[in-house]
Amino acid sequence: MTCKNEKIAVIGAGSWGTALAIVLADNEHEVHLWGHKKEQIEEINRSHTNKKYLPDIQLSESIIGYDSLEMAMNGINNIVLAVPTKAIREVLGKIAKFQTKPITIIHVSKGIEPDTLLRVSEMIKEEFPNDLLQDIVVLSGPSHAEEVSLRHPTTVTVSSENEEAAKHVQDLFMNQNFRVYTNSDIIGVEIGGALKNIIALAAGISDGLGYGDNAKAALITRGLAEIARLGTKMGANPLTFLGLSGIGDLIVTCTSVHSRNWRAGNMLGKGMKLNEVLENMGMVVEGVRTTKAAHQLAKKYDVQMPIANALYSVLFNEFNPKEAVDSLMGRLKTHENEDLTNLLND
Amino acid sequence: MTCKNEKIAVIGAGSWGTALAIVLADNEHEVHLWGHKKEQIEEINRSHTNKKYLPDIQLSESIIGYDSLEMAMNGINNIVLAVPTKAIREVLGKIAKFQTKPITIIHVSKGIEPDTLLRVSEMIKEEFPNDLLQDIVVLSGPSHAEEVSLRHPTTVTVSSENEEAAKHVQDLFMNQNFRVYTNSDIIGVEIGGALKNIIALAAGISDGLGYGDNAKAALITRGLAEIARLGTKMGANPLTFLGLSGIGDLIVTCTSVHSRNWRAGNMLGKGMKLNEVLENMGMVVEGVRTTKAAHQLAKKYDVQMPIANALYSVLFNEFNPKEAVDSLMGRLKTHENEDLTNLLND
Repeated sequence: MTCKNEKIAVIGAGSWGTALAIVLADNEHEVHLWGHKKEQIEEINRSHTNKKYLPDIQLSESIIGYDSLEMAMNGINNIVLAVPTKAIREVLGKIAKFQTKPITIIHVSKGIEPDTLLRVSEMIKEEFPNDLLQDIVVLSGPSHAEEVSLRHPTTVTVSSENEEAAKHVQDLFMNQNFRVYTNSDIIGVEIGGALKNIIALAAGISDGLGYGDNAKAALITRGLAEIARLGTKMGANPLTFLGLSGIGDLIVTCTSVHSRNWRAGNMLGKGMKLNEVLENMGMVVEGVRTTKAAHQLAKKYDVQMPIANALYSVLFNEFNPKEAVDSLMGRLKTHENEDLTNLLND
Repeated sequence: MTCKNEKIAVIGAGSWGTALAIVLADNEHEVHLWGHKKEQIEEINRSHTNKKYLPDIQLSESIIGYDSLEMAMNGINNIVLAVPTKAIREVLGKIAKFQTKPITIIHVSKGIEPDTLLRVSEMIKEEFPNDLLQDIVVLSGPSHAEEVSLRHPTTVTVSSENEEAAKHVQDLFMNQNFRVYTNSDIIGVEIGGALKNIIALAAGISDGLGYGDNAKAALITRGLAEIARLGTKMGANPLTFLGLSGIGDLIVTCTSVHSRNWRAGNMLGKGMKLNEVLENMGMVVEGVRTTKAAHQLAKKYDVQMPIANALYSVLFNEFNPKEAVDSLMGRLKTHENEDLTNLLND
């Protein structure tokens, strides 16, 4: 089933890009791994490690590091776009300058752009010349990079407007440890992946305040309802939120020690200020930008998003985290069915 | 809103019964806490502790221990039935012998009876004389006893065929830390609570094998689908499985260190035999009996339940846990939408 010996560029040598490069190399593809830091790329090519992002992992020699985008893209038909959403437009603009043949872009970033309120696939369509764009495929699901790099069992969803393109990406990545499923609802897959980071921040705050697993489970449950409510209004299939890229990813992001959005929330819950947290992390916390976008989306689509709105007040208006979580726990409707029915019909 | 000064008997002085007694005492009710072990009851009345089940908690003096069921039931209109499902018929049979006035039974047990395949409320109806039965209410949700006893924020669902009865129970328990929501779908609430223990055993096995959070999130996601598939065929509202007593309870049971079903699965994953695990636990592991019931229900309703069936093979046919989890990870359909649509339409 698995196709072999393709040449694929992974754009972005952070933990997730590197983990996906490992999966592709395990499947006997040649992988060009691009990063903008010269020293990191030299380390990848010299010692076949990427210690800052995946400390204990030895990389295959078929993963070749590049710090030149143009050289990384040489002879490439498929790219895995694994940069923070904030950097997507800049990177695509650079590729467009030298690229002459159409490519398929497999994006693995989880976010929604504030102000434009575009999903990542929409940003790509807007930014990248149409005649250079073969297909766009999103890959998402409960998949911490650290575990993928250790070949622990992992399941993800791929989705595209072109089902054949999704199936090709499924073939590229599928192996015994990394199971890939297709889903034709690209809107739902992208929204689930983006908005779960907001709930992870809230779950981290709850944990940082010393509340327990009961409180966190309530936040995740209500979080799923609020994601599904917005997503359905934006055109998603509500069932997608019950799948791997919905509740699956939400669970892993809210309960795993690997999750950087949870970790950022945890520091906020313990009393740190947002700017201190972001300095302390040293990595992009997508949920912070996405909270801004969700706050705008809730207004635009006239959807109740109490968790996103409470988090917005904490992040951007210095609202007290404890008061925010306490009011969320207290505000639920008293009859659950009404609220659940609204989930799909609001 | 909260009603006060009622007299309520909690039947079962394990961790959950005692934690609920604490909530009721916090709401200024007089609580009769029944247990069959004389020494434990003496401890409750002498030192106001229940150290075996809730080691660090001081109980209110308005919780009075009884080792005589008849004395505990004196002047009582509402009982909280907090015994393992295995003991329900025996306890109700004893109460029926001396009871003369009708009572409302609030049950908090999570299981389905093997062979009869009855939910707990159906067992109560069958076992307890109808003229002594006012109402049956189920209370369920993501609520580890340890956290409830520490007054950490917790949300639960109550459900009854009689909405007024559910609202009365909501009033009895509701306070600032313990939030109670009503849901009219008693079938869904009972099935979600019972079947989550199966998925918790499977999640524990996966963790015991050393697989990570990605694998566990996949199991929980697929587990929710399989619970909803069966539950919908049994007459539940599928939306209930998205609520606190569905995905909420499932998450907490699969990811919390407090969960005894997860702990039992974890030992199985590490290579212990079922009888060793059960000896080691010293507490009832409801999921083991429920797995037997689910295996029978899947046949009766002709529903695909791969996780429940794999677990049945591990528990009762000495199937290798690693092979079971590996085959579950590998067997999913390749197009997720088909599977998700089946969730509600199967």
